[in-house]
Amino acid sequence: MSELRKDPVTREWVILAKERAKRPDDFIGNKPKEKKTAHDPKCPFCEGNEAKTPPEVLAYRPLDSKKNTKGWQLRVINNKFAALSLDGDLSRKDVQLFDSMHGIGAHEVVVESTDHSKNIALYDIKTVENVLWSYCDRYLALKKDPRLKYISVFRNHGKIAGASLAHPHSQIVATPMIPQKVWHKVTGVAQYREYREQCVYCHIIESELKEKSRIISKNGSFVALSPFASRSPFETWILPLKHNACFAYMNRFEVSDLAEILKDTMLKLYNCLDDPPYNYTMVTAPCDTDNLDTFHWHLEIVPRLTTPAGFELGTSVYINVTPPEAAAKFLRETKC
Amino acid sequence: MSELRKDPVTREWVILAKERAKRPDDFIGNKPKEKKTAHDPKCPFCEGNEAKTPPEVLAYRPLDSKKNTKGWQLRVINNKFAALSLDGDLSRKDVQLFDSMHGIGAHEVVVESTDHSKNIALYDIKTVENVLWSYCDRYLALKKDPRLKYISVFRNHGKIAGASLAHPHSQIVATPMIPQKVWHKVTGVAQYREYREQCVYCHIIESELKEKSRIISKNGSFVALSPFASRSPFETWILPLKHNACFAYMNRFEVSDLAEILKDTMLKLYNCLDDPPYNYTMVTAPCDTDNLDTFHWHLEIVPRLTTPAGFELGTSVYINVTPPEAAAKFLRETKC
Repeated sequence: MSELRKDPVTREWVILAKERAKRPDDFIGNKPKEKKTAHDPKCPFCEGNEAKTPPEVLAYRPLDSKKNTKGWQLRVINNKFAALSLDGDLSRKDVQLFDSMHGIGAHEVVVESTDHSKNIALYDIKTVENVLWSYCDRYLALKKDPRLKYISVFRNHGKIAGASLAHPHSQIVATPMIPQKVWHKVTGVAQYREYREQCVYCHIIESELKEKSRIISKNGSFVALSPFASRSPFETWILPLKHNACFAYMNRFEVSDLAEILKDTMLKLYNCLDDPPYNYTMVTAPCDTDNLDTFHWHLEIVPRLTTPAGFELGTSVYINVTPPEAAAKFLRETKC
Repeated sequence: MSELRKDPVTREWVILAKERAKRPDDFIGNKPKEKKTAHDPKCPFCEGNEAKTPPEVLAYRPLDSKKNTKGWQLRVINNKFAALSLDGDLSRKDVQLFDSMHGIGAHEVVVESTDHSKNIALYDIKTVENVLWSYCDRYLALKKDPRLKYISVFRNHGKIAGASLAHPHSQIVATPMIPQKVWHKVTGVAQYREYREQCVYCHIIESELKEKSRIISKNGSFVALSPFASRSPFETWILPLKHNACFAYMNRFEVSDLAEILKDTMLKLYNCLDDPPYNYTMVTAPCDTDNLDTFHWHLEIVPRLTTPAGFELGTSVYINVTPPEAAAKFLRETKC
């Protein structure tokens, strides 16, 4: 018999279809291996092609190197096809009974490394730390604009996960409103706190560390686990052990610990599932509450191994064919 | 500049990226044409293979024909790999801080026609009517079970849209809880009614028929339109002009009108976008409120032309590259 499980924050149920339960091998198709070289002269994100991208808004590069030229370790640029832009004003208006406003916001690309062929799983630890510092730096810079209400940091890997360019990169989108999905999570956390007088994520961490079956790994500042109500096979969360609303205020020890557990987790997924397509998202508090002691930020990794269809679209109830306990066990036992 | 638009029911914003605006041709790839024959001896849903499926729970067939044998026009069967089942009890329980229950519910498949190669766009009108009657019949039968709180009826077409079998079919999943996405819509409708003292969907219909730019077509009982805050290119809604909470109480004139506008809309999408993958869902009231005059049921069609990535997953804000006004114009002008 299948099992229904509820996410304690979003209150969304998932169906764990145990009869159809699948192992990592079931998700590994005969996909053609893309051969990637460390440098692709046609790639706009590769070194030497800096003029092909909009100018950098941030770069980690030697002090004596020139902006928008070679020699960088990491660059952040505006997305050439930005969905939102900082120019102009919101001009909120009513159209018939509807609300509409100008697409004010930011849409940036973090070019994570000069190496065209690598990704988080294969970077050295210093590169992963750079990526995390760039998230923090850009978050804090964008947050100064009072028009921006939420800053979403995410990474798409693989075509199936929506990555249109192969060169390893993350994206940052800042919106002039709090997205509903974020709002539902913030509300869920607040209601849990009101009712049970504690943070739901702190409670999850405490309970899961005791229970053990869904824990993947742990270091001094973070824990990686398969969530109880995983929406899809091998969904993985990385949570800071210390309660904190926003990732951008991490200290250097925390950034170092996050780099370690993130690289380790991505390498486990890479080895266990043969370099799966995935999305990851920094789930963090809205800008105006990120100093408050309410939310508990974390990182959600969703490998794209199954196809959501009409049922998921219509109900947001996901059917998951790999129980999180099994996923955690596979990942725990995967060598890195 | 792009534009942000809000859905008045779910309050979800979409980003209309006008700079990247795309036309139907941009979505038509060089996909290999699958050659489908009207009968596939290996297909479990084809005539003659009735023994390969679970027994039928409903069939439209001549009175003198035997159950689970040839001669039917339409069959409804339990899904062989059902995500939920009616056997057993809910056994709701707490697991640590989490909620869990047994996977009680129903998961049925509507085998819509004996013809393996056709689909809604290409059926004769009688077959479309049969499909709609089977939705109503099964809804009303399942609704009698007090354990079932929501009945989701949907159709997946094409591999990209999650259809695992090629033979044309719809699915019905009944759940022992109201899914959060449905709950958010029901709440949105209730709040609009409280604040503006009218049904939001009735208001949308009235306003859109005056405005005209997003209307695709209209007949005696229904209107087909591109919603103001379309989440993806060519998203299309079919709404009953007369306020009604649940589709299952349609009379035969309404079923006939829905069959006509549904076939016509699917044929427009088929011709305009070269048989695109899609999901459609009957968006209807939860079981215990479907007799009440609160919700306004409708059908939502989402062609799967773009790939949701980390931003959509993390925020539920969709970036749409085809403004609904353009989509409606293309579909209005597409010949059937």
